[in-house]
Amino acid sequence: MSSPPTHLAFEDLTPERRFDLGSVTVDRDEMLAFNRRFDPQPFHVDAEAARSSLFGGLCASGWFIASLWMRCYVDHVLAGSTSLGSPGGDEIAWPAPVFPGDTLAAAMDIVAARRSTSRPELGLVTLRGTLTRSSGPPAEVFRARFTGMFGLRSAGA
Amino acid sequence: MSSPPTHLAFEDLTPERRFDLGSVTVDRDEMLAFNRRFDPQPFHVDAEAARSSLFGGLCASGWFIASLWMRCYVDHVLAGSTSLGSPGGDEIAWPAPVFPGDTLAAAMDIVAARRSTSRPELGLVTLRGTLTRSSGPPAEVFRARFTGMFGLRSAGA
Repeated sequence: MSSPPTHLAFEDLTPERRFDLGSVTVDRDEMLAFNRRFDPQPFHVDAEAARSSLFGGLCASGWFIASLWMRCYVDHVLAGSTSLGSPGGDEIAWPAPVFPGDTLAAAMDIVAARRSTSRPELGLVTLRGTLTRSSGPPAEVFRARFTGMFGLRSAGA
Repeated sequence: MSSPPTHLAFEDLTPERRFDLGSVTVDRDEMLAFNRRFDPQPFHVDAEAARSSLFGGLCASGWFIASLWMRCYVDHVLAGSTSLGSPGGDEIAWPAPVFPGDTLAAAMDIVAARRSTSRPELGLVTLRGTLTRSSGPPAEVFRARFTGMFGLRSAGA
């Protein structure tokens, strides 16, 4: 069996390295289905109420935005990596609303990386994910800083 | 027109107040559909790979878990409230994995509340949301601390 084309392990995730995670365009129907199921606030599900809200129109749930970033992260970094999940993070931000049809560029920066002391076969990577609107006026619309756990290549992962 | 049965405004969201947000049971099919679309890591989508992973079985994407909590928060607090959205938060944690069939009790605690200085018609509420497994061995499985923006009742919201 050949290895996957990209097989990232802890050793590859060095501080200041930046990953382009591609881009995603917000589909109105998918956004509305998500909003209705998980976040049915008026400005997420009711076009008329949304027009008179702070946002000025129907916009995406923050959790839909986070989920769109996650898929970009899986496709461009985690697939074929030694990822072992995440215990959480210390920043999540939605600095500007996201609307149907917006195209968002996804990225991930490595902030810090260290071996686990309690479990030497894995490493803890602090990473910052972002989504930036590339259609219309550019704006950062999502930012999250959290820890990823990755197996070491040298551990035979 | 009568008011909604519960119409929470900034003034009601006082520090140390705790809200029971009901409970939710994780549906396997819905979890898998979410995982496949947004977080297709092996331990989220491939039963065999998941069995040999750290988690020991197919488990929920962290963003699915967050989204389940959000729906409980909307149903029990935000619906009919003066909610104006959220700019983000400073903690998100998934301390234990969530599996299909798990029943999770949702809650929300008010940590702090203050009037906005730049926009006196709204208030900023720091809140902590949690999900605790109530089926099987009890465990906190999700925690998030973030800011909610709410209109003031006295502003006529």
